[in-house]
Amino acid sequence: MNHDGPVGEFGLIRRIRRRVLIGSSTSIAIGDDCAALKLTPGRDVLITTDMLMDGRHFVLAEAGAKAVGRKAIGVNLSDIAAMAGEPVAAVIALALPRHDGQAIADELLDGMLPIAESFGLSLVGGDTNAWEGPLVITVTILGQTTARGPVRRSGAKPGDVVLVTGPLGGSLLGRHLDPAPRIRESLALAEAETIHAMIDISDGLAADLGHILEESGDLGAILDAASIPISPDALTLSGQDGRSPIDHALHDGEDFELCLTVAPETAARLLANPPCPLHAVGRITAEPGLRLANHGHVEAIVMRGFDHLLD
Amino acid sequence: MNHDGPVGEFGLIRRIRRRVLIGSSTSIAIGDDCAALKLTPGRDVLITTDMLMDGRHFVLAEAGAKAVGRKAIGVNLSDIAAMAGEPVAAVIALALPRHDGQAIADELLDGMLPIAESFGLSLVGGDTNAWEGPLVITVTILGQTTARGPVRRSGAKPGDVVLVTGPLGGSLLGRHLDPAPRIRESLALAEAETIHAMIDISDGLAADLGHILEESGDLGAILDAASIPISPDALTLSGQDGRSPIDHALHDGEDFELCLTVAPETAARLLANPPCPLHAVGRITAEPGLRLANHGHVEAIVMRGFDHLLD
Repeated sequence: MNHDGPVGEFGLIRRIRRRVLIGSSTSIAIGDDCAALKLTPGRDVLITTDMLMDGRHFVLAEAGAKAVGRKAIGVNLSDIAAMAGEPVAAVIALALPRHDGQAIADELLDGMLPIAESFGLSLVGGDTNAWEGPLVITVTILGQTTARGPVRRSGAKPGDVVLVTGPLGGSLLGRHLDPAPRIRESLALAEAETIHAMIDISDGLAADLGHILEESGDLGAILDAASIPISPDALTLSGQDGRSPIDHALHDGEDFELCLTVAPETAARLLANPPCPLHAVGRITAEPGLRLANHGHVEAIVMRGFDHLLD
Repeated sequence: MNHDGPVGEFGLIRRIRRRVLIGSSTSIAIGDDCAALKLTPGRDVLITTDMLMDGRHFVLAEAGAKAVGRKAIGVNLSDIAAMAGEPVAAVIALALPRHDGQAIADELLDGMLPIAESFGLSLVGGDTNAWEGPLVITVTILGQTTARGPVRRSGAKPGDVVLVTGPLGGSLLGRHLDPAPRIRESLALAEAETIHAMIDISDGLAADLGHILEESGDLGAILDAASIPISPDALTLSGQDGRSPIDHALHDGEDFELCLTVAPETAARLLANPPCPLHAVGRITAEPGLRLANHGHVEAIVMRGFDHLLD
């Protein structure tokens, strides 16, 4: 209430309220107990949440709060993309370091607003807190399915071609802070053809394809090492740590590209006339387990990426 | 993946998945990139989020994780109640202390499941992380409006009667950990009569009524001290700290009762035949500011409760 002194929660909320864009689907935005939204009739609501913690998913002192804000929105948008959904609205919960909390909140917003706007996402509510601990931000995004319904992880079939939308590995060199959620790519793919299964690559291609295999009923896959698009960052990191570039591409995670499986004839059509960057990297098999074909020999891949509890 | 060793994120998610109830509106639950829900056609989606931090909103070592889980769901349900909405589904984001994270997650679930179930709330997804920091839990609840639409903070009118649904103050003695969200009460009130404005009392009656006054266009209110229901906890605390019981009732917060305003004739009907506990505590005035009538004299009340950034 005191504009000369510290602004406080309610002052901060008022400032946020002045800065955010409100989309046409928002019937009640910031300033009530809940936000209210009108979705397109007949569509399912999609909801996804991600919590990012200083020291765990980013280092605030190195990345800056603006990048953190952008990442927090981006990783959630990536989950909406994985279902071939349309983003609608976000709510944001913050634990702000007491020292400098206001400035951090403003910078977070600087990072969140442009990416939200560019994907038609309204920031409709949240919860702001201060404490002695490090910055924690939870973003929850609400989306809706298209008329085609959601694409799930569980629809892969033996014989399906495995595709990815871009180069993988080495995101730690910076891309992990600047995810480019594949919303438009995903909608274009789902519009063009029937996608059997899809996931966004957050834990690494091996682990995330592993989720598709598990959810589709203990299937397997064989990947072709020569076909996997390797990010320049994976090459750089490989030069530094001696792990092979393909190892980085399979296991690093936070690429935020899409991994999808489609019928072989669908893959042929998509690759002949791709609606977005697209690389065929392998095939789904009835035999369980993930394998890598590399220079004529086949080896097993551990389907494990980053585990947030164990690693 | 290793059931003898630490269970890890994916193991924990599998265990959560086995324990939660899935409601009929859930089309995709835990195990995909987003959850998907089918809402009743024609209704608005409601969304609200709250973050609770160890040392700030609870003390884990004293309260135990089960109570924390219950509170995290309860405070969000209370926001749905404030809009006269119906709860549908929740997603939960966790920062678990690395030491003991699995046990804490299980106990949180022990606290969350019964309250979720008793209000028809499905736990449909989440995000689990471990770190060296204290427990942080963000719950986001998705609900839907009834056919009557949402009740907002902004509809109070001069002359309205201010009502509350139960005794206030002293929640710090324990009730703050065990909110009883007034979902049924709110739905019964909105079904019975037209409610002009409503809010749940989380920051204290003075502050939360203040939000109604501000959002309704800088109105005021006069409260009658003798009519405000005082919780026994407020009396106990008053005996300990010397602050008056009415001061506790006005400012303590975390009562999670509802505060609503209705036209005088509506109030008369409601009080003659109350669909839930109901106390008339004052009147909305065109003159801005909050005042308290106490033993014949009228004093100004500061419309400020707990500010999460300043306090």
